[in-house]
Amino acid sequence: MSAFHPDPAFQAGSVFAVDWPLCHVRLQDDARFPWLILIPRVSGATEIEQLSAADRAVLMDEIVRAGAVVRALGEAAGRPIDKLNVAALGNVTAQLHVHVVGRRRDDPLWPDPVWGRGGGEPHQPEELPGVIRRIETLSHREEGDVSEPAPRS
Amino acid sequence: MSAFHPDPAFQAGSVFAVDWPLCHVRLQDDARFPWLILIPRVSGATEIEQLSAADRAVLMDEIVRAGAVVRALGEAAGRPIDKLNVAALGNVTAQLHVHVVGRRRDDPLWPDPVWGRGGGEPHQPEELPGVIRRIETLSHREEGDVSEPAPRS
Repeated sequence: MSAFHPDPAFQAGSVFAVDWPLCHVRLQDDARFPWLILIPRVSGATEIEQLSAADRAVLMDEIVRAGAVVRALGEAAGRPIDKLNVAALGNVTAQLHVHVVGRRRDDPLWPDPVWGRGGGEPHQPEELPGVIRRIETLSHREEGDVSEPAPRS
Repeated sequence: MSAFHPDPAFQAGSVFAVDWPLCHVRLQDDARFPWLILIPRVSGATEIEQLSAADRAVLMDEIVRAGAVVRALGEAAGRPIDKLNVAALGNVTAQLHVHVVGRRRDDPLWPDPVWGRGGGEPHQPEELPGVIRRIETLSHREEGDVSEPAPRS
């Protein structure tokens, strides 16, 4: 089996943010939505059914974790999230990936889905490093919430 | 906690097919795609994060099972599936539900998503009972595939 590489097509609209236990996590470069893309580091996978049961369980955990990060990004921007949209499509880029998008009732595409609607609004280049750092910080926080036992008093 | 009921909005475009361990399973009444809707029977849930870890695991199993049913429906119609689309959106009907849609490169909406694109093409009324029976039969087969140990020789 060859090594995992994210499909080069992801470089066009998203930037690498952080590695989680299963997934290579990217930020979609669209300032309209807090939007993460989870790409399981499983070479050749295009469908959830191709993951082992163990990897599927981790994927489910990381989807929930991504939702918490997306909600926190929305809060930090003063735009709390009304609904999470979670989707594994892959009609354009077949490599298995899961979108986790924070939606608001006043966002520009509500209530339609965000895919197949043309170009997004890239972040200001000087904003991106700050957003990435926030995702890294939130990742540790959410990891703690999910996998560490509560500290004893 | 009140009893689970599927949101009445689902009655407009889909029909009840079968109950699985976690989900109330519906067939989207759109003859263009084999398309199931999984609604966890958890009253009040609108997001995956609100499910217990145990229910999330079952939901993942049932998503994979729905994919196998959708693929089998496509095969039976002589139209094998090229790609599964799996999504939990809920912008219009908030009750937690997961779409599992079989897509083909020659389907009318490829490569766009199927949501937010206006009306579908309802099945012929006389066709529906046969499709539902096939889903029931496939459900038993896929349940066996997933949860029963292989017979020993």
